[in-house]
Amino acid sequence: MNDQQTNPGNSVGIVETRLVTLFSEASPLPLDCGKSLGPVQVAYETYGTLNEEGSNAILICHALSGNAHAAGRHHPDDKKVGWWDNYIGPGKPFDTDYFFIISSNNLGGCDGTTGPSSVDPEQGRPYGLRFPLITIADMARLQKALVDHLGIKRLLAVAGGSMGGMIALQWALDYPHMVPASVIIAATPRLTAQNIAFNAVARQAIMADPHFNGGDYYTLESDSSAKPRPESGLALARMMAHITYLSEQGLHERFGRKLQDRESLSYGFETDFAVESYLSYQGSSFVKRFDANSYLYITKAMDYFDPFPDAETTVTRLAGVESRFLVMSFDTDWRFDTSRSKELVRILHRSLKDCTFQEFASPAGHDAFLLPHESYEKSLGAFMLRIWQDVTGGTP
Amino acid sequence: MNDQQTNPGNSVGIVETRLVTLFSEASPLPLDCGKSLGPVQVAYETYGTLNEEGSNAILICHALSGNAHAAGRHHPDDKKVGWWDNYIGPGKPFDTDYFFIISSNNLGGCDGTTGPSSVDPEQGRPYGLRFPLITIADMARLQKALVDHLGIKRLLAVAGGSMGGMIALQWALDYPHMVPASVIIAATPRLTAQNIAFNAVARQAIMADPHFNGGDYYTLESDSSAKPRPESGLALARMMAHITYLSEQGLHERFGRKLQDRESLSYGFETDFAVESYLSYQGSSFVKRFDANSYLYITKAMDYFDPFPDAETTVTRLAGVESRFLVMSFDTDWRFDTSRSKELVRILHRSLKDCTFQEFASPAGHDAFLLPHESYEKSLGAFMLRIWQDVTGGTP
Repeated sequence: MNDQQTNPGNSVGIVETRLVTLFSEASPLPLDCGKSLGPVQVAYETYGTLNEEGSNAILICHALSGNAHAAGRHHPDDKKVGWWDNYIGPGKPFDTDYFFIISSNNLGGCDGTTGPSSVDPEQGRPYGLRFPLITIADMARLQKALVDHLGIKRLLAVAGGSMGGMIALQWALDYPHMVPASVIIAATPRLTAQNIAFNAVARQAIMADPHFNGGDYYTLESDSSAKPRPESGLALARMMAHITYLSEQGLHERFGRKLQDRESLSYGFETDFAVESYLSYQGSSFVKRFDANSYLYITKAMDYFDPFPDAETTVTRLAGVESRFLVMSFDTDWRFDTSRSKELVRILHRSLKDCTFQEFASPAGHDAFLLPHESYEKSLGAFMLRIWQDVTGGTP
Repeated sequence: MNDQQTNPGNSVGIVETRLVTLFSEASPLPLDCGKSLGPVQVAYETYGTLNEEGSNAILICHALSGNAHAAGRHHPDDKKVGWWDNYIGPGKPFDTDYFFIISSNNLGGCDGTTGPSSVDPEQGRPYGLRFPLITIADMARLQKALVDHLGIKRLLAVAGGSMGGMIALQWALDYPHMVPASVIIAATPRLTAQNIAFNAVARQAIMADPHFNGGDYYTLESDSSAKPRPESGLALARMMAHITYLSEQGLHERFGRKLQDRESLSYGFETDFAVESYLSYQGSSFVKRFDANSYLYITKAMDYFDPFPDAETTVTRLAGVESRFLVMSFDTDWRFDTSRSKELVRILHRSLKDCTFQEFASPAGHDAFLLPHESYEKSLGAFMLRIWQDVTGGTP
């Protein structure tokens, strides 16, 4: 999705992922499950410049399979740009001429931040399923430590799409004095039974893979040859999820019933339709860059997310929240459809929070939040500029 | 879904599945793929009595995973009744006081009719993936041979839901003089890219199972012990499909975020939510009764179904069609949603066919066509009675 050419004039240019180790065995990161983790490595990138007052920092939160590389390129000849390059850069909604953008790989991930594929210091080998279960709040807690490490006392905003929007919401609840604005896009205050069902089948696909081996599929230095990984299970999980990221309309317009590299039906079990070939490609390319155990942990964190389980908790949790909210959804998104965003808006409005909601038309389904879209871009840019003016007192 | 108690007064009572062998190696069933099959065994049941004129026969077509047992019980202590028992019996829409109902297991199935688990007479062992690819038209062709075998020259109607509706439509096109009425419920004139995508992932789940063994997983007499079957792959396929059979609303009302047999989250990879447990049950009970190769062949037949690929073909195919049509859909069905039924209605109306369309409200999603539903039941019953009056000249 992110392989379009970016105008160099509005790119953040060449960027690098940095690594920092936070927490230690003696002073570990406490987790909701009761366990703790330390040390914890965090992979992060920043774009733009932190101003002298340290008042222009925006934290960007990524979705299930994202990473710290949200904008720009690592190398001049990289074909792909960062996952939210459409929205981060000079003149873009997250305008690096004004803002200092922070983007980190989530806890439990597999792109530099500590997760189940990281080496457990106690055992000297990857955690696998010995990694503790993590929550969205744990992910925010680690980001909070990164923001502290960067010397930032208060953010200008926290923003994210899909699971990233859930993390942004968690920030507003857990660190109310640090978050004057929250941007929550294509997200939900809780997963539905259908969402949980899809996640559960995805996890079963991974765990049923004969190479899963209880999560211990990592090749160790002591192994004489590379261990096979649960690639077919992870590919199945990704293919199934990918169907939910696209709208029926989008799939129809792009593929319809077009055949793949053939004039007529095969009358066999080869790939007949272009959509089958596309999905297989999505599955096989995903397994090259993602860890199956991370998939298990992160989907479980999404399942568990439910900050407003009842009216009393909702009132308590929102009491001290200072953030204003921008909630956005897309009309063909059926993974987290507009009614899920509206549910969040209702919760916030009932607690008299400042909340703006917009739904946009797009054929792209859940993935729309990543793709170029003029009115979405303009609304997001206008909101961010207003926040900047209100919080910093600056004029554009 | 079919385990509710049936009022014995409106049950067809105790029924039996009969087997008949049609076609032979010398005179086989021709298939759309160019190959042929012979002999072919058909499992079927009948309910009610064929009248002297032989004019009151209705053929019922089952969906992907159905079988010939559409109504009644095989044994007095059977807990489950046939899959469409809600709609077949004395006083029910397919009223056995008036109609002679025929229900057969589809070609390619695994419940008595020849399919990939049947013994290939040439090889003396189950076909497996040597079974030829079949189409919806092939399924109708075999049913036509059964109807001929039963001495019926002309049916009163062909009816079915989901894939059964696709078979019913095929009957109207291929045997126009035999079909005065077609009832097509929760079906579609062609699968969408999204439908094909879900089917493709389901097939990949089966084929990726380590016990799939290229489709040769059947235990032969020469085997010293039972071979393992690709149960986890088939269970995954079923669980994923099952999500698409239920509406988001229905899943929410039934499960929501209820925990399964626990007071709090496990913070582990056990089953936390009731919907996970329900899906696992659906998967594990399905593998006890269904053959993985049948699943491959039947989903492929659905993918291929496309009787109206272009305007010219549509005109040609509908030119001689004599049937009147009843098309029905359910508002929360998202596997084959109402727009798919309306697409069929538009095609039929453009060719000036007599077509009635009704959409019903139900929280049950795609499965609604199997479940008790007062207005759906009344509409179906009224249509069938009108057909009976018009075709036989009888009065109720």
